[in-house]
Amino acid sequence: MSNPTAAMLVIGDEILSGRTREANAYHLAGRLGQVGIDLREIRVVPDDHRVIVDALDELRAAHTHVFTSGGIGPTHDDITADAVADAFGVGIEVRDDAREHLQAAVGAGRTLTPEHLRMARIPHGAALIANRISGAPGFSIGNVHVMAGVPAIFVAMLDDLLPGLEAGSPVVSSELRFDVGEGRIAAPLRELAAEMPALSIGSYPFHDAGVHGTNIVVRGTDPALVREAMERLRAIHDAVG
Amino acid sequence: MSNPTAAMLVIGDEILSGRTREANAYHLAGRLGQVGIDLREIRVVPDDHRVIVDALDELRAAHTHVFTSGGIGPTHDDITADAVADAFGVGIEVRDDAREHLQAAVGAGRTLTPEHLRMARIPHGAALIANRISGAPGFSIGNVHVMAGVPAIFVAMLDDLLPGLEAGSPVVSSELRFDVGEGRIAAPLRELAAEMPALSIGSYPFHDAGVHGTNIVVRGTDPALVREAMERLRAIHDAVG
Repeated sequence: MSNPTAAMLVIGDEILSGRTREANAYHLAGRLGQVGIDLREIRVVPDDHRVIVDALDELRAAHTHVFTSGGIGPTHDDITADAVADAFGVGIEVRDDAREHLQAAVGAGRTLTPEHLRMARIPHGAALIANRISGAPGFSIGNVHVMAGVPAIFVAMLDDLLPGLEAGSPVVSSELRFDVGEGRIAAPLRELAAEMPALSIGSYPFHDAGVHGTNIVVRGTDPALVREAMERLRAIHDAVG
Repeated sequence: MSNPTAAMLVIGDEILSGRTREANAYHLAGRLGQVGIDLREIRVVPDDHRVIVDALDELRAAHTHVFTSGGIGPTHDDITADAVADAFGVGIEVRDDAREHLQAAVGAGRTLTPEHLRMARIPHGAALIANRISGAPGFSIGNVHVMAGVPAIFVAMLDDLLPGLEAGSPVVSSELRFDVGEGRIAAPLRELAAEMPALSIGSYPFHDAGVHGTNIVVRGTDPALVREAMERLRAIHDAVG
């Protein structure tokens, strides 16, 4: 596949400490597959300025897009925006359009607090990502797209962001269930995978009500090739009973 | 905290493609906190030999422990054991004790297939990790601990592995719910965090039945310090109403 590639960078002590189950990677992975962006890495790092900057530099050099999640709220542990500014070597300050989004969200009559304004600090040269849930925007700078960790807001920001990105050929995925263990079909599968290198053929064992079975997933950007692989899989299925 | 540090390396196209929700990181993070091993990074990479080797080399140099999940079954996409052998520059072959575990699991009367034997291939110098669910073992080599991706088997392998590892001071965690948004308590929180740098103080907004609230989590290895921070948090709580 020659689709654009992407990495996700999750910023959050709460994931690494075991307090919170990471919830945005699964959604992002599914959405990127639909638009033909090939997610190649997910990395979770702590709320540590230096670690975030280093990860950003490594990932943005290696991929077409980097999507971040977490660390853009108003509290002392929200340090993502500063780290992104640092990685790009640009300044960061309260921006009028970001402030207006927050003002609209809290209501025209209320005075914005310093904590609201902290969420309107945007690195120089960034484009805002809309947040229809709570107003405080995300932003894109270069190939890095900075979004919130709260799942409903992450979903909303991705809705705003994705239509504007360089996309690729959507990935077609098809799946066949075998009620036999992986070992029984490993040999013909290996052969099929070797003959069709343009496809990704995955084998996922499961236990279901006493049955040790295997789901085979075929993925690729050429629908005809995926169909051909599925026909050959069905022949393997008939052969093992 | 001067606890030993760890990284988790998840190997699996199925996570990156959005087919499967990653399920082992949350369990590992919780268990490591209990034994005082500080999880500093989670990385998900595809079924790609070179990428796995490079990630292993980077992570094992940076951390006391590396825990891997996925890619040790019998099929063509199970390439973790070979990548680990390559990273350590050692050979890999079927080992008698691993073969015996598999023989015990399938029953003394059955002949092991080439696919069973593929799961008995262990890098030279590794120690086995027991698998009470399906027999096929994981293994530790140097500071890298290689486990299965199937959640029930990952849990079982970790049960076998953890008691033997160098541990640290268990992390104590305490939490207080505020029924106000993050912005309302950001200033006193920042002060508290600055005064108690030995603790990790996290702020996590939530929406619950129309209430915009915030959970504050205090973590540290000194229980007295955590208690002191919680008393100060309760005073902040009373002050904001």
